[in-house]
Amino acid sequence: MNLAALLADLGDVPVITDPAIVRKRSRDFFWYSPILNAQLADKSADLIAAPRTEAEVIRVAGACARHRVPLTVRAGGTGNYGQAVPLEGGVLLDITGLSAIEWMRPGALRVQAGAMLNAVDAAMQPHGWELRMHPSTRRTATVGGFVAGGSGGIGSVTYGGLREPGNIHAARIVTVEPEPRVIELRADAAQKINRAYGTTGIITALEMPLAPAWEWIELVIAFDTFLDAARFGLDAALSDGIVKKLLSPVDAAITPYFGALKSACPPGRAALIAMVAEPSLESFKTLLAGRGTITHEAPADEHGGRVPLYEYTWNHTTLQVLKTDRSVTYLQCLYPHDRLLESVARMNAMFPDEVLPHLEFIRFAGRVTCSALPVVRYTTPERLDEIIALHEAAGVHIANPHVYTLEDGSRYKRVDADQLGLKHEVDPYGLLNPGKMRSYVPAAA
Amino acid sequence: MNLAALLADLGDVPVITDPAIVRKRSRDFFWYSPILNAQLADKSADLIAAPRTEAEVIRVAGACARHRVPLTVRAGGTGNYGQAVPLEGGVLLDITGLSAIEWMRPGALRVQAGAMLNAVDAAMQPHGWELRMHPSTRRTATVGGFVAGGSGGIGSVTYGGLREPGNIHAARIVTVEPEPRVIELRADAAQKINRAYGTTGIITALEMPLAPAWEWIELVIAFDTFLDAARFGLDAALSDGIVKKLLSPVDAAITPYFGALKSACPPGRAALIAMVAEPSLESFKTLLAGRGTITHEAPADEHGGRVPLYEYTWNHTTLQVLKTDRSVTYLQCLYPHDRLLESVARMNAMFPDEVLPHLEFIRFAGRVTCSALPVVRYTTPERLDEIIALHEAAGVHIANPHVYTLEDGSRYKRVDADQLGLKHEVDPYGLLNPGKMRSYVPAAA
Repeated sequence: MNLAALLADLGDVPVITDPAIVRKRSRDFFWYSPILNAQLADKSADLIAAPRTEAEVIRVAGACARHRVPLTVRAGGTGNYGQAVPLEGGVLLDITGLSAIEWMRPGALRVQAGAMLNAVDAAMQPHGWELRMHPSTRRTATVGGFVAGGSGGIGSVTYGGLREPGNIHAARIVTVEPEPRVIELRADAAQKINRAYGTTGIITALEMPLAPAWEWIELVIAFDTFLDAARFGLDAALSDGIVKKLLSPVDAAITPYFGALKSACPPGRAALIAMVAEPSLESFKTLLAGRGTITHEAPADEHGGRVPLYEYTWNHTTLQVLKTDRSVTYLQCLYPHDRLLESVARMNAMFPDEVLPHLEFIRFAGRVTCSALPVVRYTTPERLDEIIALHEAAGVHIANPHVYTLEDGSRYKRVDADQLGLKHEVDPYGLLNPGKMRSYVPAAA
Repeated sequence: MNLAALLADLGDVPVITDPAIVRKRSRDFFWYSPILNAQLADKSADLIAAPRTEAEVIRVAGACARHRVPLTVRAGGTGNYGQAVPLEGGVLLDITGLSAIEWMRPGALRVQAGAMLNAVDAAMQPHGWELRMHPSTRRTATVGGFVAGGSGGIGSVTYGGLREPGNIHAARIVTVEPEPRVIELRADAAQKINRAYGTTGIITALEMPLAPAWEWIELVIAFDTFLDAARFGLDAALSDGIVKKLLSPVDAAITPYFGALKSACPPGRAALIAMVAEPSLESFKTLLAGRGTITHEAPADEHGGRVPLYEYTWNHTTLQVLKTDRSVTYLQCLYPHDRLLESVARMNAMFPDEVLPHLEFIRFAGRVTCSALPVVRYTTPERLDEIIALHEAAGVHIANPHVYTLEDGSRYKRVDADQLGLKHEVDPYGLLNPGKMRSYVPAAA
């Protein structure tokens, strides 16, 4: 790798070469997985390039192509599968300098990929809008990172995941070629960069739909059993007249790890964490009708560093447990919509004290179902594989978070054909984090 | 009936006694049904009272109770089951004088029952809001009439029907007693006046949720077959990322009756009538992807008397055909969500040239399915009953629109227990359109 020649080509693009900093920024939250931790802990880029404009992104991309240097895009670094970890060194492209909102209009905005999610929402809220959904890492993640490495989150109970038509309006990407091109991918075509971990072009801007910025009320509701919480969560999720952003049943085995929120989680009882639009709150409580006890109720408010309730849900649940117990890890499940509660009951009975359940109600292909990121008391890789196999045998899909390639992390164990096709177009030398899309063989290599 | 004594008690409440006017206003759109037309054509109130305030409503209600005079509430008179037709004469209470908006805040408003739906939407739109749903009679119907006599409509593809939790926030009613009381029914309790045809108290005000007032784009899309239109409609209905208000597949047998819209409906092809939010339009068209041909596309705009596209859907479809062919009538179907397209195909094959299909995609209890009001070439009451029975045998629920009692028009052939209970409280003499809730026996009578 001719890094000196590359550096000379980068001109005045800001660069960091301090190995300690480069090594630190080459990491993300892969350490939630003991398996990935062993595989990725020593990976590092050789230098960081931090472009401030799309023109500088193009300059870096062109230089990498000419000198055949790997390029890995990184933003907030909040991913869990090493999305931002360079497998073969090279340049780590820090995209967070591109953070401008290009335009907004009612129901949509266009924003540079490195904009922080919470900054975007803060800018939209005075206009009455916000992003439709965000991951639990909203306070540290970027729009581009979410689209490149995520699938859905808080808000998906209403809008489904990023994969649903209409949830990404467009993406602008820069190719990694000696003379990089800028390509606009619209509507369906924008899915080619969704959850491709930045391997199908450097995303520089995104056009995203907006949702009304409701006054969200955060609630914790205690239930006698986890299944009671799940049953009510399902009823609320199916109530199309009740506007909500989050419905997360959490088992009594998990809430003791909930730090500041413990006071709202009576020992031995399950909790449902919810975000409901203020005008729907009365109907939501009527639906609850004494089935559970509201232990916390307050308007969502992140001012003054208050911890938002969603930081106890999705994969932040795992983080809450990890704060006390570094031996746990997690899985990523998708439950079948047509026998949801039966499947939840069955899986929960299968691994007592080993797989600690919490659920995330979502819409998936138009149907209400649950995503789940259960906390797993980890013993061995073999047992983890066995737990995964038992889920899949029971009809619960697993997107394995203990692998770092696109293919192995997919529910289908292969990369999407459209994404593979786009990669041939935009990355002819296979420089975008080589090894991440392992089935890709560059024609020009 | 001592009408003279009643009149004396009404004070300066405006009253109309001209028999021609009273008779005319005692009708609604029951004549869509040849059976109801025969049964209700000669029904009439004895006089109209047109209160301007809730205090005047109370005055009329008290007088009717003291003099044991039947009272039937009427607003826009757009119902199809004689909801506003007095079965035993008495007072027709014209509620349209109560039309004020009491308050609005983001996501909700409180409005008097006699406010016109389109006036409410026009008042809310500058604030960025509109009602979540409305019937196809939006240009002539009232909020109170919709809630008392309707079930859902344009908007229900997103929010479900009025029956869903959260779609009616509260109702204020006046009882029919010598000293009438005013009762506030909130959340679930407000369902006791939904689709009770005004028999469970006189609705004077409603608190309703609001939805964002999108720029709606009206579309007509031509498809080779009705099932192609239905299949695409289902895909669009299941796309939670695409904001829509209306998805109505219409068979090629019906579009020749579509007057001004005929130019957008190529002969022999089915049509899908849709309303899509402008920011979702591109994704909607991408989903369409050549499966159909867009023949009409324009922003919804009712200025200058332009006919909105929704006046070709729901039960306005029947009206469009009736304009040319007075021999047709219609049914009200609810398809099973779990074998929707199979059921549609099966029913459509069963009655060629006799039952002309069009569908309305809705959410029902959280699932996407279809309501349908097919146009029926009417022959005899016996054949109509047979068609109904064949639908029900095939698992397609029918709410019979050829009966005038609450019970017979219900899918369950009985009145809701909560509604019956409320009637005992608010109408002890059974004066609210006696005969309409036929299973009610007043305790005080």
